[in-house]
Amino acid sequence: MTRLLYELAGAEPDRRFSPFCWRIRLALEHKGLPFEGRPWRFTEREAIAFSGSDKVPVLVDGARTIADSAVIAAYLEETYPDAPSLFGGPQAQALARFIGHWADGVLHPALVPLLLTDIHGVVAPQDRDYFRQSREARFGKALEAVCPDPEAQLVAFRRTLSPLRATLRAQPFLGGDGPLYADHIVMGAFLWARSVSARPLLEPDDPVAAWRERMLARLGEGSRGLVAA
Amino acid sequence: MTRLLYELAGAEPDRRFSPFCWRIRLALEHKGLPFEGRPWRFTEREAIAFSGSDKVPVLVDGARTIADSAVIAAYLEETYPDAPSLFGGPQAQALARFIGHWADGVLHPALVPLLLTDIHGVVAPQDRDYFRQSREARFGKALEAVCPDPEAQLVAFRRTLSPLRATLRAQPFLGGDGPLYADHIVMGAFLWARSVSARPLLEPDDPVAAWRERMLARLGEGSRGLVAA
Repeated sequence: MTRLLYELAGAEPDRRFSPFCWRIRLALEHKGLPFEGRPWRFTEREAIAFSGSDKVPVLVDGARTIADSAVIAAYLEETYPDAPSLFGGPQAQALARFIGHWADGVLHPALVPLLLTDIHGVVAPQDRDYFRQSREARFGKALEAVCPDPEAQLVAFRRTLSPLRATLRAQPFLGGDGPLYADHIVMGAFLWARSVSARPLLEPDDPVAAWRERMLARLGEGSRGLVAA
Repeated sequence: MTRLLYELAGAEPDRRFSPFCWRIRLALEHKGLPFEGRPWRFTEREAIAFSGSDKVPVLVDGARTIADSAVIAAYLEETYPDAPSLFGGPQAQALARFIGHWADGVLHPALVPLLLTDIHGVVAPQDRDYFRQSREARFGKALEAVCPDPEAQLVAFRRTLSPLRATLRAQPFLGGDGPLYADHIVMGAFLWARSVSARPLLEPDDPVAAWRERMLARLGEGSRGLVAA
């Protein structure tokens, strides 16, 4: 049986840039579950139609197909209880949801303006129109007009990291001594950025930068080879 | 043995308005530990000098004296392991730190401009000069100039609640089925506001408002009688 993870990819199949797919890649590695990451492009709706979802990540685990990163993470925890825990118990799982919503609603919105034109530059040729049109509709302006002042946006982005920074000043991972799914959630954003842009996001002495290095050092072999900007 | 919690109070001794003291009041109730809350004012430094701290909360628990809400919460969990857990395990305790830093660094700064002049109106007469001078030094302007547009500040405050709101849309408490110290951290901010200001902070249909009601309904008898604005 091959475990299959459909992952958003760019023109280069090894450029995987969805933060939500990264969460699941890290979660599978955390659990020690071997898998094949299959590159998927925005416009390949038919390829995942069997899942009932039009977005990745989609995980095919034997007879089971699961979509949506939060649902997949909960599925992995329930299905593989003897593998290292992604959550550390039901109460920690409940608290991780707050961090997930913080990532989705605060961290990503601060980061995406810095990445939009870079993403457009790396998506597959057949995805370019879709990406431009869908994002321009979302932001109500041309891709190139979303971030008129990247330096100011970078400052705003770094400011949103304050609770993360303060936490990582006192402990090596959000999960304490070792990473939990909460760490993978946040690391997904940094791997998203790293896969499309060479812009330095963090000051070298930022505790978040040291944590990111710790997380990078734990990447599985199959992830290390994936293209970074 | 009387367990004693020194709590910041206003001119009325039953007006307890420190968010950090509320965290510990809720934690003690959560643990089912009886205590006496002793009113303390900003300028009563000598009264708590024995603790080595110049700020409350200070807890005197038999022969032990502990200051700082985070340290007290960890102490209570360690010292009373058989009472209901404040954290739900070490990993959840690690994640709760993120929520604590989010409250301290994002939630409180969005709320305090709305409350400053109200607080000045309720502090004890001997605390008034101290409060004005220390806060004006911190903000670099007159108390009355810190929040020139309360309506805009209220909108900004509500926006900071987005990860809390999204989480509470899916589960009754931050801790899941029941409250944890993470809930007490955030509730401390709402009890702070409630103790000094009658301004409605939340739309009635906000999931955060329903959670606040659930938290209020769980207040211990000794806390229900405390003065609200």
